[in-house]
Amino acid sequence: MNVGIVGASGYSGEVLVKLLLAHPRATLRAVSSRTHAGKPLVAVMPAVRGADRGLRFVDSDPVALAAMDIDLFFLALPHGAAAGFAKVLVPAGKRVIDLSADFRVADLATYRKYYGEHHAPELLPVARFVLPELTPPAWRQEAKLVAAPGCYPTSVIVPLAPLLRAGVISREHIVVNACSGVSGAGRKVDEMYLYVERAESMKAYGLLKHRHLSEIEEQLALHAGGPIVLQFNPHLAPMRRGIATTITVPAAAGAGLDVLYAAWAAAYANRPFVQMLPAGETPDTAHTIGTNRIDIAAAHDPRTNNFVITAAEDNLMKGASGQAVQIMNLWSGFEETDGLV
Amino acid sequence: MNVGIVGASGYSGEVLVKLLLAHPRATLRAVSSRTHAGKPLVAVMPAVRGADRGLRFVDSDPVALAAMDIDLFFLALPHGAAAGFAKVLVPAGKRVIDLSADFRVADLATYRKYYGEHHAPELLPVARFVLPELTPPAWRQEAKLVAAPGCYPTSVIVPLAPLLRAGVISREHIVVNACSGVSGAGRKVDEMYLYVERAESMKAYGLLKHRHLSEIEEQLALHAGGPIVLQFNPHLAPMRRGIATTITVPAAAGAGLDVLYAAWAAAYANRPFVQMLPAGETPDTAHTIGTNRIDIAAAHDPRTNNFVITAAEDNLMKGASGQAVQIMNLWSGFEETDGLV
Amino acid sequence: MNVGIVGASGYSGEVLVKLLLAHPRATLRAVSSRTHAGKPLVAVMPAVRGADRGLRFVDSDPVALAAMDIDLFFLALPHGAAAGFAKVLVPAGKRVIDLSADFRVADLATYRKYYGEHHAPELLPVARFVLPELTPPAWRQEAKLVAAPGCYPTSVIVPLAPLLRAGVISREHIVVNACSGVSGAGRKVDEMYLYVERAESMKAYGLLKHRHLSEIEEQLALHAGGPIVLQFNPHLAPMRRGIATTITVPAAAGAGLDVLYAAWAAAYANRPFVQMLPAGETPDTAHTIGTNRIDIAAAHDPRTNNFVITAAEDNLMKGASGQAVQIMNLWSGFEETDGLV
Amino acid sequence: MNVGIVGASGYSGEVLVKLLLAHPRATLRAVSSRTHAGKPLVAVMPAVRGADRGLRFVDSDPVALAAMDIDLFFLALPHGAAAGFAKVLVPAGKRVIDLSADFRVADLATYRKYYGEHHAPELLPVARFVLPELTPPAWRQEAKLVAAPGCYPTSVIVPLAPLLRAGVISREHIVVNACSGVSGAGRKVDEMYLYVERAESMKAYGLLKHRHLSEIEEQLALHAGGPIVLQFNPHLAPMRRGIATTITVPAAAGAGLDVLYAAWAAAYANRPFVQMLPAGETPDTAHTIGTNRIDIAAAHDPRTNNFVITAAEDNLMKGASGQAVQIMNLWSGFEETDGLV
Repeated sequence: MNVGIVGASGYSGEVLVKLLLAHPRATLRAVSSRTHAGKPLVAVMPAVRGADRGLRFVDSDPVALAAMDIDLFFLALPHGAAAGFAKVLVPAGKRVIDLSADFRVADLATYRKYYGEHHAPELLPVARFVLPELTPPAWRQEAKLVAAPGCYPTSVIVPLAPLLRAGVISREHIVVNACSGVSGAGRKVDEMYLYVERAESMKAYGLLKHRHLSEIEEQLALHAGGPIVLQFNPHLAPMRRGIATTITVPAAAGAGLDVLYAAWAAAYANRPFVQMLPAGETPDTAHTIGTNRIDIAAAHDPRTNNFVITAAEDNLMKGASGQAVQIMNLWSGFEETDGLV
Repeated sequence: MNVGIVGASGYSGEVLVKLLLAHPRATLRAVSSRTHAGKPLVAVMPAVRGADRGLRFVDSDPVALAAMDIDLFFLALPHGAAAGFAKVLVPAGKRVIDLSADFRVADLATYRKYYGEHHAPELLPVARFVLPELTPPAWRQEAKLVAAPGCYPTSVIVPLAPLLRAGVISREHIVVNACSGVSGAGRKVDEMYLYVERAESMKAYGLLKHRHLSEIEEQLALHAGGPIVLQFNPHLAPMRRGIATTITVPAAAGAGLDVLYAAWAAAYANRPFVQMLPAGETPDTAHTIGTNRIDIAAAHDPRTNNFVITAAEDNLMKGASGQAVQIMNLWSGFEETDGLV
Repeated sequence: MNVGIVGASGYSGEVLVKLLLAHPRATLRAVSSRTHAGKPLVAVMPAVRGADRGLRFVDSDPVALAAMDIDLFFLALPHGAAAGFAKVLVPAGKRVIDLSADFRVADLATYRKYYGEHHAPELLPVARFVLPELTPPAWRQEAKLVAAPGCYPTSVIVPLAPLLRAGVISREHIVVNACSGVSGAGRKVDEMYLYVERAESMKAYGLLKHRHLSEIEEQLALHAGGPIVLQFNPHLAPMRRGIATTITVPAAAGAGLDVLYAAWAAAYANRPFVQMLPAGETPDTAHTIGTNRIDIAAAHDPRTNNFVITAAEDNLMKGASGQAVQIMNLWSGFEETDGLV
Repeated sequence: MNVGIVGASGYSGEVLVKLLLAHPRATLRAVSSRTHAGKPLVAVMPAVRGADRGLRFVDSDPVALAAMDIDLFFLALPHGAAAGFAKVLVPAGKRVIDLSADFRVADLATYRKYYGEHHAPELLPVARFVLPELTPPAWRQEAKLVAAPGCYPTSVIVPLAPLLRAGVISREHIVVNACSGVSGAGRKVDEMYLYVERAESMKAYGLLKHRHLSEIEEQLALHAGGPIVLQFNPHLAPMRRGIATTITVPAAAGAGLDVLYAAWAAAYANRPFVQMLPAGETPDTAHTIGTNRIDIAAAHDPRTNNFVITAAEDNLMKGASGQAVQIMNLWSGFEETDGLV
């Protein structure tokens, strides 16, 4: 299978490049970038030196890309930009896995409230939000366009969805605190992201109406069978990669840790990329870096009757590019773990 | 005034040494350490080279220390060890500022539940927990022994105490997430604190019954006029110093940001070491490192009716040694900011 | 092919575990550790969670290991300890790749000067120091025991050996400065390696008679056809992995950059794991982390007539475990790059 | 004494602001910035919150600045920009301490070769390069304009100047390797200086003809009494502040460590900001951060007959702003250490 990456020069694009260059069943045929068109891949991404197969960046032109002998495209573009490529590539019969938010939110009004105008609303009916461990498998036949989940949302939806579905936790008073590595902001050249500004610095940011809320709450509502409104407090941590998420939520009446873990086990028992740690342990981002895993654990506080749920993942792997490859694997009938271990 | 530091070789001890060597009104006469007795200060603490005034470590022997011409001792010792020094130094007429937890919790049963046996309960009546901006000034005359607040507690009590007192926030559903730099664990030689383990790593730890809860809840109860039970989720962040604390708490009926800020202003308007940031901003640990400040800010989420309160401080300054010097200054009639700007 | 790792719980052991769990042609059958015998691999190495195949640590007992159905052992042990395992495993017909220094130095007197007593000198005749890109291939048939090069030595020998052999550089006034990440010290629990001590810290250490000098100079002498005595200045840099080495050496009479690059090209033109950067560029450790590459480049200073040669590698990959797997691949007739891309 | 800072929003400007706000004898009256004119100081530099005395940025207009009631200006501007301010402020009778390179190189031809056109060559005769521990004190009367040394040059000139003067070392085969924290590049918003690019990254850069060479070699020649041409290899290290410099140089005939240390002692014995470590120790940048010290040490390698000289400093203190304040202190008849301990 031939694959291409549109917008390959950002951080999630770079991880996609590395994963696909080493993938046993997909062949990376095209990497595109407006800025770097014409340059050798290795000039922009020296980390793949010697493994770059002589690839050069092509221009990010949707029509030209659609004409290439490529079966599946990954869109690693900013929100708003991806839709313009999807509206050319999907009608041309290409499979598309979009890593942006453009097709993650099914409700158009919600999308507009958080992101502004949508540039390809006509594709929403054929798009599927796919979190591989949670989305029922029919998408593998139905979808023409897959929206891969965001990094923060993955770290919230994976632990909470089975618990809301099973009624193990309250639907109210859910408080999510998440700490992300700096690559979560993308390769944005801004004073805020300079080494000297971020090293040894920890801070909350984007409180209230963070864009990812739209996706988190819409997805959780599907699992809960009713609306979910939660507090989402993102933080910037002095590290390159990783998200550590800590969720405090009241236990449902009578629900203990055994019930919680049983709900998780029902959803994830044999899934290689969701790992449950024993109660009492807490996942560490460092243990997930470079893997496609999300590690989850829970504790119960008898003083408050809250569950404290912790999750860790590599924001560029299970939180972005690794998960996108996992989606490609399932969509294409490959082993789920191909190229991911 | 002559001062001494018992247990000067840990991280808070080291910051105390630096502050006191440069203090305009106190003279550091003794630094003690069981491990380093006899060694030049500079051999253990090369950062003070050239400013060390030839000081050498003396043994941490309470009787010998009590016999020295020293007016005030700082105890920078582990919990449990400090009491044994206080019980000799206080009766000998020395002023004592204890940076450990030994005298922070007035209720002996609570202390025992969290820390085990208390080695000098007879001193509890003459000990005062002093958070300079909150404790009424009578302690300056009454106290013989001052317990300086811990780093996590300072970052929780400073923002919450005036709000509980003014009834601006709920007493329930308080969720505290705090991220601490690695020095918060002290100079503990343990695999967990190795550079390679902690760099690029973020994780929750010590969920449920963290020792600092005893102090946080006891103090908050005093301000609230009734018991407070909260969720406290500490995290270890890949940085040397700093604590960033994010508190989610429902607003009291009808309370908005203006009321919250008014309550803060009433408590802190002219206090140099508590700085209020405008709503919408969030404090950054990096901006507080090396200072004795705690920066606080708040946002109100109309979707959840929660306040999200953020605080940042240097865990070794306002969270430990800086605050201890601030206490010394007030106790001794110096300017509050002497040696701290 | 079945393989085992003796001393698998250190940093190079951990990287070996990850590489071998994912290797397409070798099967990891045993991991040993005195400290962790009996524990599940995942309990000690949570980063392999989900990929650990249920492995448990066995005791590091050479006789018991020799009895296992294992074809090849990696020794990831401290200097001095490896020889004791080799002297049992080699006679038992096992192939052994030793990552310690025990068999790197052919001259016993030199070994003793730098490391002390040798515990298996009788094996020196059947041991081969193998730097895959430089050692003539006869070792693949002859060796019973292979000494994998150290991290600093790889970063010095790879760039210098072809230049000394071709007479492109002076044999005198060679100055090597190298900066290593903290994992170079191994998982040593010592105050010096605590996060708070090493973060934001840069320093030279181990000047004069650094142990690796014995191996560097012996190897370079073989290529130069005469003794080499150089200045080797190692440094500790605030990062987890990586070595950046900068070598200043006078150009031989009449030799320019084209001659230098030609000598490199003759040695390395088609070798995937040695990459030459154009003159004027300088390699970056970050671009090599997680790969088995060493990147090298050179500049010529007309003011001094020196070459300034720069190299970067991942100290745990090309500098240790990756190179050991590369050696296994060549020894076993696998593709050189198997499990390494 | 009233002082002002032109270009106060860069990293050395920020350190100057902090030092001068706390200085016991100088009063900071003006901070200028083209970009931030009109904004409160604290809005741009939140680290001085509460200590900012209500200062606001004024425009960087030389004529308007010259009209202010200010005795001494610090120029914390890029190379090339400083001269334009000096040519207005100096004739207006203001003392000027320039932290840029504009007046560091006395030889105009050399300046042009490294930096391009000079915008105020007429001031070169009244300018003095002042390294306080080395420059004979007559400058305190003669100078109208002082060029403060650069960060790399300070770390090379301080250790080498007395040795060249005393003939303890060779004038040839001097090899300088220096590793700088990222703030050495200033607050430059460039992809190269993003957190994700620099964390965990170590690399050489700017080999050959680095701009600082002009200043280093001109100064060393003055002390050596003849031309010095050396190899200077700068590196970028993953830390915010600090420079670690390692110099390899052949010992002069018969010179040993005792002679070397005697030459240093003659120059620096009672100078608080140059500290000599015993032979065998090596300075650590972390021990100098926040201080105005440079720590130096030497070892002698009998195998090569080289001295290996190591130095560490805070690039923004002794390497820039701290040294500028030290110069102000001496120029103004204050204690050399005022505001610096």
